[in-house]
This record gives sequence, C-alpha cells and structure tokens, in this order.
Amino acid sequence: MSDVIEAVEDAFKSWSGGLGAMPSKAYLTLEEGDFRAMPSALPGCVAVKWANVHPLNPSRGLPTVMAILIYSDPETGYPLAVMDATEITAYRTGATAAIASRYLARKDSCTIGIVGVGEQAYTQLLAHLQLFEIISIKVFDRSSAAIDKFIQYFNEYPVQSCSLQNTIASDILCTLTPSRQPFVKKEWVLKGTHINAVGADAKGKQELETALLKEAVIVVDDLDQATASGEINVPLSSGLLRIDDIHATLCEIISGKKKGRVNDEQITVFDSTGLAIEDVAVAHLIYRKAKDKGDYLNLDFVDG
Amino acid sequence: MSDVIEAVEDAFKSWSGGLGAMPSKAYLTLEEGDFRAMPSALPGCVAVKWANVHPLNPSRGLPTVMAILIYSDPETGYPLAVMDATEITAYRTGATAAIASRYLARKDSCTIGIVGVGEQAYTQLLAHLQLFEIISIKVFDRSSAAIDKFIQYFNEYPVQSCSLQNTIASDILCTLTPSRQPFVKKEWVLKGTHINAVGADAKGKQELETALLKEAVIVVDDLDQATASGEINVPLSSGLLRIDDIHATLCEIISGKKKGRVNDEQITVFDSTGLAIEDVAVAHLIYRKAKDKGDYLNLDFVDG
Repeated sequence: MSDVIEAVEDAFKSWSGGLGAMPSKAYLTLEEGDFRAMPSALPGCVAVKWANVHPLNPSRGLPTVMAILIYSDPETGYPLAVMDATEITAYRTGATAAIASRYLARKDSCTIGIVGVGEQAYTQLLAHLQLFEIISIKVFDRSSAAIDKFIQYFNEYPVQSCSLQNTIASDILCTLTPSRQPFVKKEWVLKGTHINAVGADAKGKQELETALLKEAVIVVDDLDQATASGEINVPLSSGLLRIDDIHATLCEIISGKKKGRVNDEQITVFDSTGLAIEDVAVAHLIYRKAKDKGDYLNLDFVDG
Repeated sequence: MSDVIEAVEDAFKSWSGGLGAMPSKAYLTLEEGDFRAMPSALPGCVAVKWANVHPLNPSRGLPTVMAILIYSDPETGYPLAVMDATEITAYRTGATAAIASRYLARKDSCTIGIVGVGEQAYTQLLAHLQLFEIISIKVFDRSSAAIDKFIQYFNEYPVQSCSLQNTIASDILCTLTPSRQPFVKKEWVLKGTHINAVGADAKGKQELETALLKEAVIVVDDLDQATASGEINVPLSSGLLRIDDIHATLCEIISGKKKGRVNDEQITVFDSTGLAIEDVAVAHLIYRKAKDKGDYLNLDFVDG
C-alpha cells in the first residue's frame, strides 16, 4: 500500500503538471448492469480499465463491481499485460482518500471512523494506517457480520464497533455506502473533521447532509465526474449547492495552486469519484514489480 | 470467414432492430500514436476493444494497428475471455465490406479490384470469395513485394498485378490505402461499379475523387464516424459534399428500410469506418467456438 500511495500521489502531480491523458469514460448500459471503459495515460504508461457495476451480483456470489485492465506500451501500442483490476480499484481508492487526508485532515488526526464496512473499507484503513498514527478505529455498518469480519481481519489494531453518531465523531471520517439518503448529520460532525466521501458514485446518491456540505471546504477529484455522479451531485442539481461552493480539485491542493485547510476548526470534505489516472499509475507499478521479478504469469499482487 | 460474415450480418440486423449498445469510442492521443476504447454489446454478449494506431511501428517490425479485446458476461459483468483482436478487426472489416457488396454490387459481379495490398487485403478477398463467383482478381500496390506476397498466398486464385487504372476497372473495387490524395479518378470507374472505401479512417484521408462521390450512391456504416473520419470527411468539411448526399446506412439497406442499387448503371460506394458491434459479434462467435471445443487457452482462430 505504501508503494500504491506513492504511485497515486505521483500521478496527481503529473496530471496537475499537464502530463498524461484521460479522456471521458465511455459508459455502456445494459438491463442487468453497466460497464465503463476508462482509458488513461501517464508518462511511460497507458491502459484501459473495463469495470462493471451489477447490483444483483451479491445474490450470485459475485462482487457488484469487478474490473480488468489492459496495460499497453505507449510507444508501440503493444499490449504488455492484462491484469485483474478489482484489487487495483480498491487499492487506488484507499490510497487516494489517504492522500486527501494527508493534505486536508488535521496533522494530529488520530481517530478514524468508517461507515460502510464492505470491500472498500479494508483499503481505506490500510492506506490511512500508512500515513497517520491511528489510536482509535471506529466502524459502523448495518451488517454485524461485516463488522465482525473486519474486526477479525484487523485484529492487531484498535477497531471498535460503534454507533453511527459515535463513528462520525472522528478526526477522519470515511463514508463508503451506496446511500441515497444523507446520514451524516451536520450536528454530529465535530469541528476540524476531515471527511472522505467515497460512496456516492451515481446520480441520486448522497451521504452527507447538504447543510454540512455548504459549511465545509469541498475538494473534488474531478469536477465533471463529481458534478455528475459524486457526493455533490444531488445538492448541485437541486440548486442548494453551487459550483462556486467547490473549493478546489485534489490536484490543485497537491500542487500547491490552492490552499487546503487553513485552521483546525474547518470541516474539509474530499469527494472521491475515482480517476483513470489512479488506475494506470497502479498498473504501471504492478507491471514494473512483475518485470523486476521476471514473473508475468504468476503475478503476486497481495491484498492486505 | 463464412461464420464471421454470418455473425456480422446478424449484428447489423440486431442493431437496426434496436438491440445492442454502442457508445462513442473513447480516443486517447499520445505523441507516438493513439488508442481507442470501443465498448459494445449485442444480445448475449458485451466487449470492449482496445486498439492502437502507431504509424512508426512498421520500422520496428510491428503492425501499425493492433487490438486486444475483453469479452464479458452481460448478466454479471464477469470477464470471460481476453482475445487478440488484430485478426478479429481484419476479419470483421473484410466481412462487412463483402456484406456491403452483397447488398450494393451488381449480382453478376465477377471481377474484383484491390488497391493497397496490406493486411486488410487478405480478408477483403477471403470474404468476397465467400459471396461472389470471382473469375478475375486485379491488385495494385506501390510495393511489388506486397503484391508478390499476396499472389503467393492466393496462388490457387486468378490474382493479377495490374495498373492502377486497370485495377479500378472492376465490378467490385476495394480501396485500402491511407491516402490523403484521392487516386480513384471518376473517369476510370465503370458504370455499375461498387466500391468499398475502407482506407480513410481519420480526418484528412480520402481515396475517391469528390466528383465520383457526388455521382455515387453513398452508404455509410455509421453516419457520425463516417462524417468525422471516413471517406466522406474531407468533401463534407469543405462543403463540396452535403449530408443530404449520403443515401443510407448499411443497417438501413440490410433491414430493407432503404433501397440500395436500383439499376446496373449506378455507382455505389460503401464508406467503411468500422463498428464496435462488428467486433463484439466476432468475439461472441470465437468464444462460443472455443467453449464448444472445451478449449480456452489454446484458442485456434486460424487466419486464412
């Protein structure tokens, strides 16, 4: 995960410096689910990720979201590797949120709250553990089985099952649910909190109360994507939030073009929708690691 | 090739019946070349093709255009196969042109002329041999090595190296060059000829004189793609040709919504830019054949 964080942060730096390419995703919608093709390039690498969202999959024993990626040589177009990208997606999403926390959360942040303890929760925590001295991990989920599994997985860490309100009362809060009903109430959020709003990934989804968003310093990964399908999509389309209320992109913060948090009282929100440059950056890392090992077929990209 | 022709024709029929999905290609442009992600679906199948165009590749011993394809289960999104799609592209392009010839050329067509004897020429001829009783095959290329190789490959067929003008004087003419200077002169084209204009695939490319296009019955595979990058893109953008001069799409011809050729004097032109539904149709065919053989790893999709 530390390598992934470094690769993703480098990707944001390259992108803010005008390097790389990231055309709009091509969406394909079918009755049973949808697909998106996500092409992108960074210096020395180019890839396309093909990801699906099939809501009925859990009933079939399959993940809702899966992904596969083709990694090509930018100089010749030759395909160098085909990789499973389900893990890549989880890792780069966790890494990006932790990077956002590094730039936006209070430096002394030591408690983390996680709402929605599915697949994404694992990499969110793994990534934050790399960058912060966490002394308390609070988790909330409607499924106690999901919480038990998570606590078991991180049994060397101080993970506690908490109420929703208590989980929200953390220095860093990660919201990872598909909710269409905002559940993070403004009154429950302490001053100085940083929130990674990761769950909303489609029109109509929202996790944070609009009143909270209006008061917060909002940073997005990509303005077009966030506007269309991120945490801010609902209040923007209803007019309760305006584009001017968005403070910056993560690139602008990382590159220093805009300031992030300026005091310990502000509430900061990172609206994460997921960028293709994050995927190609991680694919590049994996390819180089596999090549160094001289091993293409038995690619050991270990989870956890 | 006969199976490919059937699969591609079925794809056009499905598409004209409102079945399937084909979002716009996502283009990614780099210094050394470009890539396109082409997602598409037909009943029972979905895929994305990732194809590159790298003009300097031949000097490195690599094809200019290569492609790879991910074939997924539409019901779950699960990736079922990853296929080389360089051959798929050549086969479906040849098949589509031959289908266009079946609907647009004179029924008694027995001579075929091919200008530009590169990779595409092989599948153009293979496909037309399936659908027509060809008694004379005329070929022209600036490279005599390319012609010799082609004649050697088809040594059981009546292939002759001819002048450009003589090659053009055929019942069915296939133009397969990257020319930016129209070389098919109107005065050289006999009445009743059908032309498959396959070469132009980017802004600025054109193989047929505009005067010839203005007189011909023009059928395109896709109006948007043909307008942007097909045979008609240059005269359309200069205003010498108008959208109204385009007679129909191949779908409209195949489905009977519009008539094709109505007499033996007309010159018909099929402007081929290549559709993603052609790719997914062939991928579906290959997948079913591989599955029937119980063989996923050693996939024998034989060329020629």
